This record gives sequence, structure tokens and C-alpha cells, in this order.
Amino acid sequence: MAASEFELIETYFSHTGGPREDVVLGVGDDCALLQVPRGQLLAVSIDTLVEGIHFLARTDPEALGHKALAVNLSDLAAAGATPAWATLALTLPESDTAWLEAFSAGFTALAERFGVQLVGGDTTRGPLTITVQVHGFADPARVLRRDRACPGDRIGITGSLGDAALALKLSAGVGSAVGIDRALADRLHRPLPRIDEGRALAGLARAAIDISDGLMADLGHICSQSGVGAHIYTDLLPLSGAVAAHIKETGDWSIPLTGGDDYELCFTARPQLTGKIEAEMHRLGCGFSWIGEIEKQPGIRCQGVSGDLLKGMVGGYEHFGTP
Amino acid sequence: MAASEFELIETYFSHTGGPREDVVLGVGDDCALLQVPRGQLLAVSIDTLVEGIHFLARTDPEALGHKALAVNLSDLAAAGATPAWATLALTLPESDTAWLEAFSAGFTALAERFGVQLVGGDTTRGPLTITVQVHGFADPARVLRRDRACPGDRIGITGSLGDAALALKLSAGVGSAVGIDRALADRLHRPLPRIDEGRALAGLARAAIDISDGLMADLGHICSQSGVGAHIYTDLLPLSGAVAAHIKETGDWSIPLTGGDDYELCFTARPQLTGKIEAEMHRLGCGFSWIGEIEKQPGIRCQGVSGDLLKGMVGGYEHFGTP
Repeated sequence: MAASEFELIETYFSHTGGPREDVVLGVGDDCALLQVPRGQLLAVSIDTLVEGIHFLARTDPEALGHKALAVNLSDLAAAGATPAWATLALTLPESDTAWLEAFSAGFTALAERFGVQLVGGDTTRGPLTITVQVHGFADPARVLRRDRACPGDRIGITGSLGDAALALKLSAGVGSAVGIDRALADRLHRPLPRIDEGRALAGLARAAIDISDGLMADLGHICSQSGVGAHIYTDLLPLSGAVAAHIKETGDWSIPLTGGDDYELCFTARPQLTGKIEAEMHRLGCGFSWIGEIEKQPGIRCQGVSGDLLKGMVGGYEHFGTP
Repeated sequence: MAASEFELIETYFSHTGGPREDVVLGVGDDCALLQVPRGQLLAVSIDTLVEGIHFLARTDPEALGHKALAVNLSDLAAAGATPAWATLALTLPESDTAWLEAFSAGFTALAERFGVQLVGGDTTRGPLTITVQVHGFADPARVLRRDRACPGDRIGITGSLGDAALALKLSAGVGSAVGIDRALADRLHRPLPRIDEGRALAGLARAAIDISDGLMADLGHICSQSGVGAHIYTDLLPLSGAVAAHIKETGDWSIPLTGGDDYELCFTARPQLTGKIEAEMHRLGCGFSWIGEIEKQPGIRCQGVSGDLLKGMVGGYEHFGTP
């Protein structure tokens, strides 16, 4: 099987996103050989998508190729890093040319958008599993991490929350994505990593994370790793028209609060820097919102429109506040 | 599932092989942040092991943890690189504490032997699949690659060939590894990457590869990527007592010629450097052998003890010689 593995990667991926000048040797040797710019940190992140867990069987392979890379690039965005290279470990039940072409097209289009070259990979036979590792560069003085939030920081969010969760809920309800607004479906299947926004926030924001598991969970990671808590206001949450209408109809705030897969950035910043951050987001044409503050007291307090704390939301994630 | 994924990696792997001074941020943030030494290339390799394809269900998880890292480190060895960091993407059918403890123990013991720190990972639910990416450093003037072999080069092999394939054949024959010599079984289940040998060969050898898919296939990669061919002699192949006895009994040369999983190094070198290489291998206590020469004519010619070319072996891999 060695020759065919080799040929699969060669055929579909050896030219993805390249050539970059810092790739001395790409796909096809034992190792890729790469040059990290002097003075920059190497930022790496690895993520796996499994059929039946992260996506349904018969998911459009072009969207899957996009998403497998996007969820990884989103981690680089959260660090304020500049993407450079990716590796791909693809486990496939069978060698399906049409599937591979479509997957490669989705992966490659996103890779080229952000200047990412595929430098290595492994193709194996087995249940459909996609592991991507991305590599980027980060300025050591400006890199963003989860554990730097301080009491008094404002909490910011790019874009809008809950669109992916609503698309998932609606498509489950109707049995397919047919009838769901295309823009809403794209938030679930073709998320766009906030690379430019992350780079702009580097050096301005104090802590950051990308929202993959839902706002409460991911803001919870910032809080627990920074040893702080947070107070957020539901009426400040950035909502698309579709999510706002759904909440009005159902009263269900879990969509924007705990729904995953949005891949927006959640960050904290000194109040003095809010103006600069607003200007940067405006320059990038990125909608964004301040949704609350970092506090000393552990846990996340989520205040509803009435002024009351949402009990369920607090209890569900209180354990992040206890060391 | 996010919190439990997070905790799995934290619990079993966050201290594996660390701390290294060049790890600014390891497991637990969006990205790991790493420092590559000035003037060194970053060498990366990614490999996947799938249950039912690369290993049987109920394989000893401690051996699996060892092997998942070993096969990747072997790629760094083939480049003459020095290992530094690893990432691990683990897909598991269920969260099995005993399995994870044993897997982690095998992975960690090998990581510590070679100074490798686990810096990131992802744990997902699904059919058992293990993807490891290793990262190492290589001197740009001395790094080994597949595409540098030249006609007239001698072809060298570390250690011995066919032990892993024989262990696999015997264990398949008897239904289990019981009754197989422990040392032979370890060649299959606990291969030792030739890291020190690869580093010693860097700057001396011209081309190198690790033997994962069998000598004929992997020497075939060197030949096709270098645009050359090879002539090898079966009576020069390094064989353990067990493999030599098996060939004497069965006449089956496929075990050392096309059997995989040995993770020895196959390299080529100028004839003038053979003395230096022999001295280095002697210094490391590593058995090794010269088994033939690189030739201009594409394809691999494998000459038996009688002086005749082994027909099946040539034909099976002739396609590597045609562009």
C-alpha cells in the first residue's frame, strides 16, 4: 500500500498552496524541511474531525476539506499568529477519486487564501478521520494566549454567535440542510478563521481564544487559565437576524451561549485599548461587540435582559471557576 | 465533550518528556509556542496508525504508545535530525483509563529517551486511530534527504533486515505472539528509531531513508527521487540468526527484501567515506552492512547467491525506475 499512499498525497496535495520560499523540502521525503523566520515563535495546533462525530456521513467533501483546515487555522488566529504550513493525515475507507478531488479543492482554496502550503501528510485506510496540523509564526512580544486575562478587562467578540449551532439545529430538524438559508449553512460548513482579526489583536488584546465549543465553555477556559471570572450581558451578545428571531420565537439562549462551531474570537483587553481595537476591527470590516468584563470572582455570570442572572448557564459552567 | 477531551490530554500527556526550555507554551492553549534554534531547519513528519490496518485489536497499548512515536521518530532519524517535540491526535472508541495509562507510559518512556516533549494534542471519540507528528532540528548543510544518491555510491544498512516481518509471519501462523522469541517480537512491536545513527550519518551519507515499507520499496524511493538505480547482493544483506534460519528453511527472500516495519536506515555514501561511516557506526555500537551500489540504470537489480538476478524482486518494483 506504500506506493498508492504516496501517490495519493502526491497527486492531490503536493502543490497545495505552494511554493513558499521557506519550504526547503515539502511533500515526498521522510520529513518536510522548513525555515522559521529569525525571532519568531513557531505556533502549532492539531485537530481531528471524525465521521459520525464531527460530521455526518455523506457530508460534502469540498466543505469538509475547507472545514478541516479552517478549524485549525482558527487556533492560529486565536494566538494572533500568521499561518505558514499544514500537514494532513487522512484515513479513508477507500481510495475514492471524486471524493479526494473535492476534498482537495476545498482544502486548497482555503490554504491559498491564507498563504498556507501543505508540506507533508500520510494517507491510510480505515474509518474516515481527518487530522490537520497547522504551523504559523508569532511575534513573542505580541502573541495571544488564554492565561493573560485580568480583572477589569473588557470582553470582546468578533462577528456573531450561534449561527453554526442554529444551522445544525435546523438541519437536524428538517433532516437535511435543504431550506436553510445558505449564509447560515455556510457558518456551520465553511467557517472562516479570523486570521486577519487575530493578527490585528496581537499586541492589543490581553487574552484570546477561538469559540469552537461555545462562548461559555471557551470564555471559561480563559477564566480558569487566567484565574479570574467574567460577567457578561445577553443583550450585548452579537446575534445575526436569524439567531435573534430564533431566540424571540423559542426563548432559547443556549444557541449563542453554548452552541459551538462559530470560530469567532473571544478576547479580553484593557479598557484604555478599546478605541484602538474598535478602529482595527473597523479597518478590517469585521463586526464586533463588547459583551462584558473580566472580574476577580471565579465563574461566569451571565446577566439576562431583565437584569437577573441566567441560572442554568451559570451552573453548567461553574466548575471552570473552581481550581 | 470539550472539557473531558481537555482533561484527557492534560491528565495523561501534559508532562510527557518535558519541560524543554524551547517550549514557551505547551499543552492546554489554542497553539503550542515553540522556539527553533537559530540557523536550524525545522524537520516535521506525520504518521497515522489505524486499528485493524496497522495493528490488531487488543494490541498491548504500552507497545502501541511506543510504536506510534517510534515510527515518526524514525523519519527524523532518516533526515539526520535531532528530535524535539511531538503532537498527538488520539481517536478512541471510549475513554478507557487503563488503556490510556498504558499507552501514555509507552509513549512517554520513548519520548524521554530521546528528549521529546509532547506540546499539543486532540482527543476525539471514534474508531481507534493514532496520529503523531514529530518536530526536530536539522543542520541545513548536513540534513539527509532521499533525492541525493549518485551512481557509484555504496548502499549501507543499519542493523538487520526482516525481523519485524518474520515476527509478523510467525505470530500470524501460530495465532498469537506466544512462542516467538521476545527479541524478535520486540522488533515488530517496539522498534527503536535510529536517531543517533541518523545524526552521525548527517554530513557523511549522501541520501537516506528509513525502512518502513521494506528494503525494495524504500530503496526504490531513493532511486526514483534521485533518478538512479541500484544493484544489491542478497549475500550481503544483514540478517539475524532467526531470519537466516527461516530463509534456509523456506528459501523465502521476501522477508528481508520486501518485509516492512524494520525501521533501519538505508543510506548511500561516496566510497571515500565508507571508512569514516564504519568508524561512526562502531562508535555507536550499531551493526551495519554495505549491500550494493547505486547505478545509473533505473530500477533495482537484486543478485542472488548464485549470481543470478532474483526475477520476482526486480519486476515487483521495476515501476520505480520508470519516470
